[in-house]
Amino acid sequence: MKKLYFGSDYQEGMREEILARLQETNRIPVSGYGTDDFCASAIAKIKTACKAEDAEVYFLSGGTQTNETVISSLLHDYEGVVAADTGHVSLHEAGAIEHGGHKVLTVKGIDGKLPAEGLREYLELFYADANHDHMVQPGMVYISQPTEYGTLYSLGELRALREVCDTYHLPLYVDGARLAYALASSANDVTLPLLTELADLFYIGGTKCGAMIGEALVIRNKTLLPHFFTSIKQHGALLAKGRLLGISFVTLFTDGLYEACGAHALQEAEKIKNALKENGWKFYLETPTNQIFTVVENETLKQLEEHVVYSFWEPYDETHTVIRFATSWATDPEDTEQLIRLIQEYRPE
Amino acid sequence: MKKLYFGSDYQEGMREEILARLQETNRIPVSGYGTDDFCASAIAKIKTACKAEDAEVYFLSGGTQTNETVISSLLHDYEGVVAADTGHVSLHEAGAIEHGGHKVLTVKGIDGKLPAEGLREYLELFYADANHDHMVQPGMVYISQPTEYGTLYSLGELRALREVCDTYHLPLYVDGARLAYALASSANDVTLPLLTELADLFYIGGTKCGAMIGEALVIRNKTLLPHFFTSIKQHGALLAKGRLLGISFVTLFTDGLYEACGAHALQEAEKIKNALKENGWKFYLETPTNQIFTVVENETLKQLEEHVVYSFWEPYDETHTVIRFATSWATDPEDTEQLIRLIQEYRPE
Amino acid sequence: MKKLYFGSDYQEGMREEILARLQETNRIPVSGYGTDDFCASAIAKIKTACKAEDAEVYFLSGGTQTNETVISSLLHDYEGVVAADTGHVSLHEAGAIEHGGHKVLTVKGIDGKLPAEGLREYLELFYADANHDHMVQPGMVYISQPTEYGTLYSLGELRALREVCDTYHLPLYVDGARLAYALASSANDVTLPLLTELADLFYIGGTKCGAMIGEALVIRNKTLLPHFFTSIKQHGALLAKGRLLGISFVTLFTDGLYEACGAHALQEAEKIKNALKENGWKFYLETPTNQIFTVVENETLKQLEEHVVYSFWEPYDETHTVIRFATSWATDPEDTEQLIRLIQEYRPE
Amino acid sequence: MKKLYFGSDYQEGMREEILARLQETNRIPVSGYGTDDFCASAIAKIKTACKAEDAEVYFLSGGTQTNETVISSLLHDYEGVVAADTGHVSLHEAGAIEHGGHKVLTVKGIDGKLPAEGLREYLELFYADANHDHMVQPGMVYISQPTEYGTLYSLGELRALREVCDTYHLPLYVDGARLAYALASSANDVTLPLLTELADLFYIGGTKCGAMIGEALVIRNKTLLPHFFTSIKQHGALLAKGRLLGISFVTLFTDGLYEACGAHALQEAEKIKNALKENGWKFYLETPTNQIFTVVENETLKQLEEHVVYSFWEPYDETHTVIRFATSWATDPEDTEQLIRLIQEYRPE
Repeated sequence: MKKLYFGSDYQEGMREEILARLQETNRIPVSGYGTDDFCASAIAKIKTACKAEDAEVYFLSGGTQTNETVISSLLHDYEGVVAADTGHVSLHEAGAIEHGGHKVLTVKGIDGKLPAEGLREYLELFYADANHDHMVQPGMVYISQPTEYGTLYSLGELRALREVCDTYHLPLYVDGARLAYALASSANDVTLPLLTELADLFYIGGTKCGAMIGEALVIRNKTLLPHFFTSIKQHGALLAKGRLLGISFVTLFTDGLYEACGAHALQEAEKIKNALKENGWKFYLETPTNQIFTVVENETLKQLEEHVVYSFWEPYDETHTVIRFATSWATDPEDTEQLIRLIQEYRPE
Repeated sequence: MKKLYFGSDYQEGMREEILARLQETNRIPVSGYGTDDFCASAIAKIKTACKAEDAEVYFLSGGTQTNETVISSLLHDYEGVVAADTGHVSLHEAGAIEHGGHKVLTVKGIDGKLPAEGLREYLELFYADANHDHMVQPGMVYISQPTEYGTLYSLGELRALREVCDTYHLPLYVDGARLAYALASSANDVTLPLLTELADLFYIGGTKCGAMIGEALVIRNKTLLPHFFTSIKQHGALLAKGRLLGISFVTLFTDGLYEACGAHALQEAEKIKNALKENGWKFYLETPTNQIFTVVENETLKQLEEHVVYSFWEPYDETHTVIRFATSWATDPEDTEQLIRLIQEYRPE
Repeated sequence: MKKLYFGSDYQEGMREEILARLQETNRIPVSGYGTDDFCASAIAKIKTACKAEDAEVYFLSGGTQTNETVISSLLHDYEGVVAADTGHVSLHEAGAIEHGGHKVLTVKGIDGKLPAEGLREYLELFYADANHDHMVQPGMVYISQPTEYGTLYSLGELRALREVCDTYHLPLYVDGARLAYALASSANDVTLPLLTELADLFYIGGTKCGAMIGEALVIRNKTLLPHFFTSIKQHGALLAKGRLLGISFVTLFTDGLYEACGAHALQEAEKIKNALKENGWKFYLETPTNQIFTVVENETLKQLEEHVVYSFWEPYDETHTVIRFATSWATDPEDTEQLIRLIQEYRPE
Repeated sequence: MKKLYFGSDYQEGMREEILARLQETNRIPVSGYGTDDFCASAIAKIKTACKAEDAEVYFLSGGTQTNETVISSLLHDYEGVVAADTGHVSLHEAGAIEHGGHKVLTVKGIDGKLPAEGLREYLELFYADANHDHMVQPGMVYISQPTEYGTLYSLGELRALREVCDTYHLPLYVDGARLAYALASSANDVTLPLLTELADLFYIGGTKCGAMIGEALVIRNKTLLPHFFTSIKQHGALLAKGRLLGISFVTLFTDGLYEACGAHALQEAEKIKNALKENGWKFYLETPTNQIFTVVENETLKQLEEHVVYSFWEPYDETHTVIRFATSWATDPEDTEQLIRLIQEYRPE
């Protein structure tokens, strides 16, 4: 039996439609640095999908890069970004935010989410502190949808966060590295236009959702980030051949491909979750998206890993481990079937 | 007549061999962040080409990104990078080097090159200055091969620079954004192994030399940049799907493709240079690579630009302008023929 | 009754001996930037006091400035500083460390101290994390002696921290903003020579311990921070009239003045602590130095604050508040007497 | 004969009036971080002197510190500061501006001054450059009054600069490290109120003009630098005992002391300049302030330096050197007499 890959959602290349488009357009000469027509079309399509004709859209290459460029550009020197302690910017960006000069101000997350009440409490305490002028000022709020734990903010939760942001005049930025898997979830009630309305800026993840590379940053209010082209260049984030990003996104936003990428992953994830449930596996966390967290007995794990690639998440206790299975736009339904057979075979006693 | 594109060497997509390889490998699941086998093979091939089995090789996405990541990682806080005043890091990186905390210390360039004598003089004056402890310390030297003006360092010039660097214990870094066009030049005597030997680190440009994206950084001495993987991540330069870069470079370094990319561009450039000479066009600068700088009368330019896309370089005088034609791995010989016809038609009187 | 000042240890000017020395030397012309003989004498005296003739000593103006200059100079780009979550660098430096590009990696403090076990556990977890190359690398350890809560590391605790630092090759830096008050404490067993031996570098606080301004940084190993003079200049921390710092420290380290400053503060603090105990006031934390934390009923506090300036620390519960009284080298024993009378008058029922 | 000191204007301590005030106030307890009454009075007096009741005034410790804090706070990430190539920020701040993330964009200075025409030309060329979005955007203008060469901007020159700044919406910042020596010059027509009107912000130098330490930053428009207190803290520039700066400046701005400091230095400088002229010494540059640049034969210099401390400026030719004599608020007229005798004795043949 060949080895199964459920380790992540960035282990295959790109949707074949994008490859085809790259091939068709390969010898067409265009201008550089994202000033080409592919980018222009992609921008137009994204604005339409977001119902935000006045927005600005920029393409960058990856999530950490987008986060650090946005955060560094948006904040004053004396400001930091408020995030859940489990946020990507808090933990897994190798200090990119701090390298740009800014502190990540952490609030205790719940299932990966920044709770509106936690945010409000943090801000109240901050401004009540007599020494707050000696501290980093909160300058913006960062969340991810879905979160690093595969969970989702409901529309109500997002509105509550927005309200706190409004009270304290803080821009709200949403990291959508896996946004396709949020949008496709049956549990989701935050559509792209609603997200555009509630966030000041957010990015639509390409790398993990069907493209080889690329994230599309949507800025609702054009005046928020002046000279952002120069900022992108300064952060080493400007591709000479911006066409790669334009072609990828124009394809993803044609004929519902981005939605299809999300839907496929969720359909496969659903099968796996059902199998886990039916076979008595323990969930570490219930998630409505493409990331599945389950608790496995360590001896079982040793046998399992001969057949399937998964993500190690964290130790659960002395004898168990939390692991993650991820599906994606690329998951082969036959692989899902095989994984389900393993789930049955290694069911906990 | 369709419009001709000689504006830059990044206006088309990628060599078809790379596209084909992307297609073949698209559904093969591999690990992320450049830990895949494509990258491993590419690294092995590049080390062989450089005759440097002990070197380290990393893949990044673009030139400015590579420069800022390297320079920021290599320098101490109190140090700056010495470069020609016309260097890419000096002028056209939107302050990426300074954003990383470092000053670019400029020395007057000659035809885009940093002269060894100019470098030595700068360093002598620096250390003779009684106040030099109040100034940014020179910490490394940056040059580009070919330069931003399409010129080349000869082996003798490079050895002279190396000697100055040795005297002052300065690492020498070479920006090879267009390296294929240096290596293929009949005027070049700096082979890849010689470059590896003389530079402490340098990058082999992919973006402008046949790939859609990607630069391969070669570090001769493994200990020079500890934890460089983390630095790449911190600079937002780590692709989740590093396979894109691995596949691109393994292809470019198979069956002499990188050399072929360079050779093709230079062959087309040679035809254009000859046509310019034969038809009495004035060269702004004689270049042995794929960039051609010519001085055009402004009225002629207006007519010319209806037929051909070129790069505006700078005003020459009241009535003339310096423009650049660039060939590349993608230049269609039929387009070259058409451009030559325009060169004949608009020959200066 | 005049108002009593027990709000902080930086509310008066400087020891009169320093003022006298400033007056005597005022018109003596000397060279700038700390190259004068006063600084040279101060350095010699500090080395002798530390029993570290091979150390390097530099003078800076304040605590945050010293911390950010040291930390920024000591760390590589990809590294952060590990500190207790209550550390000054973690909370009250307005992002100075992050502005210099580095993350503060926090470990849960106990009574203001970074526990060796907590540090070891953090480091073990860090290196056990499969993703640690995507995270900020721990590059040094920061502690303060006494801590921000007035507590002290014992020799045993410091040796335990040193051992963890040795295991992980991390330099240990000690913030001694209030070091005089540690050295003078009867509970202290970490002498200046022992501190020099156990820390890689630390600073002897002047601003809060008898001087108007100034901190003396002691670096045990001269090679640790090359070109540190230039780093000081770069951080805007180099005084043209370095004599101010030299004169202050040469005076503090003559005839035991620094010890005397500490001893006086502790003697006054002792009286206050005894009065609090005898009168049934609740301690928030028992401290062996010049900072005293007590829990006061809110109605009492309103009356108290008409007579005495204290520091608000934090709310204790609905009806009580934690406040801080601080003594210093400048505390007038008559004021202490008056404060004790208030302590008696407002004793909790 | 005792050695004469004309090496700089920071070789003595402080005006005795300040020392006296420090002594009188030494034991008065006040609040920290510049929130004390001495600072409040100093601010009020400075506003009155500037005829700018709506301005904001902050105290910092030194020139480089003030420059880097202001520039880092004022600029967006993508912007740099335009300055003369001989400006202090360009050369002698050890990369403080770049450490804060910003490029110094240099324009050729004339006698230390940034010419309005040079500035305009630079800006025109910048915006005419098709690639200017790939370059650091000019974000503010820096000049010094007097300049590093002791020269002065006339009111006309300053107005011309202001006009260019207005055209391009650039704040104008004036480094007044030696401002007392500008204000006292008979050649000066830029009064403090006029400077306040024409600059967006500037600082009144204390360190070189009568104080031991301290610079007073005047910001005409309060909204220009929000949260600047926090920025000062972040840059390690906030003194716990801000009283030192408050007392220094309230004294300097009482009874015309600041003017007196300037006037004394200029009177002594005038005597020296006359002596140099009368005795046929060559001026390197004619200056209307306290810095005097003269060209000395190298053999003469060897003899001279046995009697007098001067500043080495730069080699003039094979056999001559440019040196600087500086007078200050502290120059002893008897020392001036002695220097004049040396000037007579060593007159060029």
